[in-house]
Amino acid sequence: MAKLKGNCVLAQSGGPTAVINSSICGAIQESARHPDIITGIFGADNGVLGILQEKMFDLQQEPVSNIEGLKSTPSAALGSCRYKLKDLTKSKEDYERILEVFRAYNIRYFFYAGGNDSMDTADKISQLARQTGYDLIVVGIAKTIDNDLAYTDHCPGFGSVVKYNATAIMEAGKDTEAIYTADTVTIQEIMGRNAGWITAGTGMARRSYEDAPHLIYVPEVPFVLEEFIKDVREVLKRLGYCVIAAGEGMKNTEGKYISEMGGAFGKDSFGHAQLGGVAEILRSIIESEIKVKARTNKLGTVQREAMHFASLTDVNEAYMCGQAAARAAVEGISGKMVTLIRESDGANYKCTTGLADLSAVANGEKMLPREFLNERGTGITEAMKRYLSPLLQGQAPIRIGDDGLPIYVRLEKHWLKPKTAREYIPGKK
Amino acid sequence: MAKLKGNCVLAQSGGPTAVINSSICGAIQESARHPDIITGIFGADNGVLGILQEKMFDLQQEPVSNIEGLKSTPSAALGSCRYKLKDLTKSKEDYERILEVFRAYNIRYFFYAGGNDSMDTADKISQLARQTGYDLIVVGIAKTIDNDLAYTDHCPGFGSVVKYNATAIMEAGKDTEAIYTADTVTIQEIMGRNAGWITAGTGMARRSYEDAPHLIYVPEVPFVLEEFIKDVREVLKRLGYCVIAAGEGMKNTEGKYISEMGGAFGKDSFGHAQLGGVAEILRSIIESEIKVKARTNKLGTVQREAMHFASLTDVNEAYMCGQAAARAAVEGISGKMVTLIRESDGANYKCTTGLADLSAVANGEKMLPREFLNERGTGITEAMKRYLSPLLQGQAPIRIGDDGLPIYVRLEKHWLKPKTAREYIPGKK
Repeated sequence: MAKLKGNCVLAQSGGPTAVINSSICGAIQESARHPDIITGIFGADNGVLGILQEKMFDLQQEPVSNIEGLKSTPSAALGSCRYKLKDLTKSKEDYERILEVFRAYNIRYFFYAGGNDSMDTADKISQLARQTGYDLIVVGIAKTIDNDLAYTDHCPGFGSVVKYNATAIMEAGKDTEAIYTADTVTIQEIMGRNAGWITAGTGMARRSYEDAPHLIYVPEVPFVLEEFIKDVREVLKRLGYCVIAAGEGMKNTEGKYISEMGGAFGKDSFGHAQLGGVAEILRSIIESEIKVKARTNKLGTVQREAMHFASLTDVNEAYMCGQAAARAAVEGISGKMVTLIRESDGANYKCTTGLADLSAVANGEKMLPREFLNERGTGITEAMKRYLSPLLQGQAPIRIGDDGLPIYVRLEKHWLKPKTAREYIPGKK
Repeated sequence: MAKLKGNCVLAQSGGPTAVINSSICGAIQESARHPDIITGIFGADNGVLGILQEKMFDLQQEPVSNIEGLKSTPSAALGSCRYKLKDLTKSKEDYERILEVFRAYNIRYFFYAGGNDSMDTADKISQLARQTGYDLIVVGIAKTIDNDLAYTDHCPGFGSVVKYNATAIMEAGKDTEAIYTADTVTIQEIMGRNAGWITAGTGMARRSYEDAPHLIYVPEVPFVLEEFIKDVREVLKRLGYCVIAAGEGMKNTEGKYISEMGGAFGKDSFGHAQLGGVAEILRSIIESEIKVKARTNKLGTVQREAMHFASLTDVNEAYMCGQAAARAAVEGISGKMVTLIRESDGANYKCTTGLADLSAVANGEKMLPREFLNERGTGITEAMKRYLSPLLQGQAPIRIGDDGLPIYVRLEKHWLKPKTAREYIPGKK
């Protein structure tokens, strides 16, 4: 069969990570090695929104140093979005618009880096193209700090967010250990709305019983107030201080988010509801029930962008995934997402790439295995440490400017001239 | 005059920093070079509390690698405290107890690393010793991330907290720039209860108009709600997104902390008071007034402990201060704090140490000069960048373990046997 010839478009979707640009870099550089097949390399501004709104740019007009610099630039340099396409019947207009734009620009290769929702979108675009007889190759690239994608050993972005969060809680632990006579408890709020992978990952910082985090709370283990107070008291009795890793998605036994509870849990000493997130609620509980001072840290978006202390393994694997996506595409493979396969472990850790069906990934979810947590659910096991440790290896190199701060890349974005005759407003009927 | 011969004790006080251990390392290693004068080198557990409670340890029994490792270990390895000694008449018992302990252990050299309050304590101990005829040499070592000590060009700890915070807001900026179609504004809450040095320091991250932070709010410039909303709207109009550096000590025109305002400012859309700090209050204002989604980041204690991305210049200067303290002491100088003197600037930046009277430092305060901020007070000037840039130079080396995470030191603390016949409970009459 003759190889499909045409342009490719790359897009990023969902919450950015420290290494999603590295994936894009891998896909661009590999695509550029096949100019007889992939004729033009375009980027979509803010994910699928850029396709819908016909805001695309020519990545081959970027300086080579900008493309290379993506490997050490956090966030989503193409721009990202949280625009969600529903199923083919409900969002039909959107899907048809995407194909209209693809036709206008002779886009024959579509690379989409994202999580479950993005893989679902990619899958549906692929289906519609097939149904309408438009030749299109769609390849997904796994991306999520949450590490909850099925069919892949782990997700690019996860290693870096854990490396940084574990380091940060180690440092916060040193702080609490020093100043515990005044600030006795520290609660660090950690990302992961539905999965406790990252929060549990901070357990890596705990090499000895004095080390933080002393207690870990993940969404997968229902939060019981009385047990929490008991656990904190026990740590305080033993050490005099306590550092807690609190997953933002912590839930009670009824499956309700702790952060959304305005009732018994969520009130401060003045009876006001606390809406500052789960860490503030736990602080309020500790201060009123245990009568010691507690502080909160919430690294927020910094945690998923911490290229200044990212995992080199993660950066390299992200690149490898992007590269593998482009290789699969030029071989004519479509409807797949690139996965990571752990070939060997420990000091001989080795990872290769594989492929999984987009539809399977879209409908799957990988929860934190219960055996990665101790019986009480407040600490991690050796099995989790074995799984995690290889993912944190190496420090990703970054450029530092004369001002002593990192230098990250911003793409020039050489815009393509609009080719369809109409303006399209996503989400409007 | 014959040199005073006896033991020394080192103590750390107040909020820890990334480099205060480096100062202690400098003081220990320099003291050890004068065994004919300084016979024993002790540490006090948790600052002055350790002296009052007679909890001290022998630092010469620590493995050499532990002492050396202090240079790359954040926080206060001796332990710190916020115990405040009042003036000589009101806290007389405490001061007398300190001298009682010093006599019992033949402590003739006292090194105290801390901020204004600690220098005040050190000064009073020095005075009382003189009054009671006890030969004692007291030398202070400047320490505070807040950079608000007078008589010193800058404070050890400041360079590192700025380097890290500026990097973090640069990374948060990349995040907002990528995902602004969903999360439009990000507010990063930054330490500095009374001084805006650190918050303003994040302005270093802004190399071009697109770069974060777009707006800076410091305690020195009164916060006016209407101007704030106007400023945010203006940035949003220009860029589509906005990243704000909010000093935790922001005050209104009446000098009241914004974070403590339960009234007009401090209410969320349900009418509940927001107590999660200034960032949550600003988020609430933006979401209700401008109707865009805002996120908050609060690095909390992590920012002052971020040895994983500390300034090498800062670490080295902190060491130099500790060393200079010990040198001054063995030369018989007392009642002084070691200061930093900027000898030259720019690429030829050079810093040496000086000495200032403890009493002068105790009563002084160095505010952020108005000329370091632009007219509106929401950005920094070239003068501030020139002042700051040398302090951020170089990455402090750290050890990384097989698990991919930093290795920090914990002192073994070989306890000294109590020598006074009584138990003393600080703060009790």
